[in-house]
Amino acid sequence: MNISDTETNHRFDHNLSLIYLDHNATTPVHPEVLEKIPLWAQYWGNPSSIHKVSREPKSILRETRKSLAELLGVHPLELIFTSGGSESNNTAIKGMFHKSNKRNHYLVSSIEHPSVLKTFEYLKTLGAEVDYIPVNQEGVFDLEFVKHKISNRTAMVSCMLANNETGVISPLSEISKLAHSVGAYVHSDCVQALGKIPIHLEELGIDMASFSAHKFYSLKGTGVLYHKRGVPFQNLIHGGGQERSRRSGTENILSIASLGYMVSKKDQVLEKNIKVKNLRDDMEREIISSISDVRIIGLTQNRLPNTSSLFIDGVDGETLLMNLDMHGICVSTGAACSSGSQEPSPVLRAMGYSRQEAQSSLRLSLGWLNNESQIEYFLETLKKVVLRIRSIKEVTL
Amino acid sequence: MNISDTETNHRFDHNLSLIYLDHNATTPVHPEVLEKIPLWAQYWGNPSSIHKVSREPKSILRETRKSLAELLGVHPLELIFTSGGSESNNTAIKGMFHKSNKRNHYLVSSIEHPSVLKTFEYLKTLGAEVDYIPVNQEGVFDLEFVKHKISNRTAMVSCMLANNETGVISPLSEISKLAHSVGAYVHSDCVQALGKIPIHLEELGIDMASFSAHKFYSLKGTGVLYHKRGVPFQNLIHGGGQERSRRSGTENILSIASLGYMVSKKDQVLEKNIKVKNLRDDMEREIISSISDVRIIGLTQNRLPNTSSLFIDGVDGETLLMNLDMHGICVSTGAACSSGSQEPSPVLRAMGYSRQEAQSSLRLSLGWLNNESQIEYFLETLKKVVLRIRSIKEVTL
Repeated sequence: MNISDTETNHRFDHNLSLIYLDHNATTPVHPEVLEKIPLWAQYWGNPSSIHKVSREPKSILRETRKSLAELLGVHPLELIFTSGGSESNNTAIKGMFHKSNKRNHYLVSSIEHPSVLKTFEYLKTLGAEVDYIPVNQEGVFDLEFVKHKISNRTAMVSCMLANNETGVISPLSEISKLAHSVGAYVHSDCVQALGKIPIHLEELGIDMASFSAHKFYSLKGTGVLYHKRGVPFQNLIHGGGQERSRRSGTENILSIASLGYMVSKKDQVLEKNIKVKNLRDDMEREIISSISDVRIIGLTQNRLPNTSSLFIDGVDGETLLMNLDMHGICVSTGAACSSGSQEPSPVLRAMGYSRQEAQSSLRLSLGWLNNESQIEYFLETLKKVVLRIRSIKEVTL
Repeated sequence: MNISDTETNHRFDHNLSLIYLDHNATTPVHPEVLEKIPLWAQYWGNPSSIHKVSREPKSILRETRKSLAELLGVHPLELIFTSGGSESNNTAIKGMFHKSNKRNHYLVSSIEHPSVLKTFEYLKTLGAEVDYIPVNQEGVFDLEFVKHKISNRTAMVSCMLANNETGVISPLSEISKLAHSVGAYVHSDCVQALGKIPIHLEELGIDMASFSAHKFYSLKGTGVLYHKRGVPFQNLIHGGGQERSRRSGTENILSIASLGYMVSKKDQVLEKNIKVKNLRDDMEREIISSISDVRIIGLTQNRLPNTSSLFIDGVDGETLLMNLDMHGICVSTGAACSSGSQEPSPVLRAMGYSRQEAQSSLRLSLGWLNNESQIEYFLETLKKVVLRIRSIKEVTL
């Protein structure tokens, strides 16, 4: 089914003239999902009950697990439903720490999401030894560092599949080979990759992977943890024994149904993403040609089709964001996941950019519902706003 | 607004003739919540963003926190949104264990929910010392045991406010006084109490309390942890720093909105529960007078207004459940939270009932949408089914 913009705008009538370019923070709920919600919400039964109202919820749970497993090429029972990407990351990492008694060393990419980095910070207070894999200004990983540091004391390497700020895709196959050669496991935060690029967990050599529904046009409240059979594991949440005793708590069927629905659209994903990539590439070309002193991070690298991370010299990212917001355009200066943080992007700082550079950053992340006229309006507005901010700055100086 | 049964049945058309008497497992989504969902689902923005789409989500978060805090008589910032009751219980208990360095002893009621009991089982493997407070066949707590075992080595007492299977309300004030007299904290799983009885956290002397939205006519995926200022605490989920750095992960605004809406109906709660209690009491009287060899657990005790836990001698609970299910009546034999468990209720076993007794148990938990004609139909059916099961058994013997 084709989603016309009219239909979309109609559904988002409180955001009628909104141009949303912040899909890496969260995606709008897909219009077809919005349509289905009233039906799914009627399947409120507890899937653990053994009477009639549990039947539809049980079937939604089973079907979503099955279709997601097919998409990822894994066994359905290797997937654990959680409350979100953060819980999935915490479960994988803390579980490994508590179960890998003899190995106490971890290699973690320096540009991970806070739910990975902060979890390792915590585990360091409990005695974990953590080395951070350097990533250069173009987003290239220092594999020599990995080779140098990895050893038979290494329990796990944790490296995201695609970065949430730059969109740069990590060399996971190489990292996995290095990890497996010393008997270490590989965890990957795949939250930003789901629905944007094909994910071959087995080919990439990933042993545990985290996903989130709300980054894929589904409802919030559902994450998934891929847990390969035999990989050390410890529950984060103990209790009633749901998810084959790996994650307790009554399942969020409404949100799981929405994820299942989106996964069932997998045949459209490639086509949608080609459209998004063309929009993104045209947008970047136009920005570079019409605004001076702009740099695009990771331009030469393998990137997600929807993400564009820029430095606009002499323009404060937050000022830019607020000006665009006044024109109904939603963008981001870094990760939106760190609530209330006033610090410039830790990802860009870890990549070696200065505080000042990080403060002039702008993240544009496109989605399936964006179209050419929206991008055109955004570009016009961006040019005007950048000019004004720069001219005010010159007057002030 | 009054919810007519016609309206309800219309909304639950896939369960047209359903008589749902299992509200302690999960409640139906309130018809008014069902009506509001399509609107709330449009507020899909990430509350941590700083542009337009975050404004409504932020406001829903703030308003729900505020009204729930008013209901519970606590400060809004003492409430932490989680993914559910199990996560709240795990967070409170594991956090205390990791932070109360010098005290390592815990007193736990023997009839807790699995998300409390299994969490303590896990902590015992890490060195926690746990004593289980005995509860007799009527649901009466052995406070002498508490007095005997509690000491300045006790970190915390964990005791639910109302039991999910029997509905019996715990003597929390007394337990809290004993705990506080030795400097121990009190955690209470209040999941079954919310919306059924008034909860005065301060009067009861509770330091941490767990709640769940889906036991109160709201959507699944939201729990709440009351965390009194100054009580030892450790994140279960690290990351972006939501909930003032106490629980990371993008907030499930849709489900939080539904909880906020239900809390705003607090003025109706008392009246609704009087109606439910009258229905329950009439139902129990009729069962006792018309079916031989029936016992009601905790009949003389202070109980939730909606719960009735019975033994029907000579009738296997599961057989009864399935027969009632065929007549469109949903009941439970024990807790529905333990998925796939074939064991008879651990709660009833802990109360000193035999395996055989526990196997003949039936839990009826009523709700706001039940009415007299439903209970009448249920009673007629119950009598017929019990007679048949008993007669078959006699023939077989």
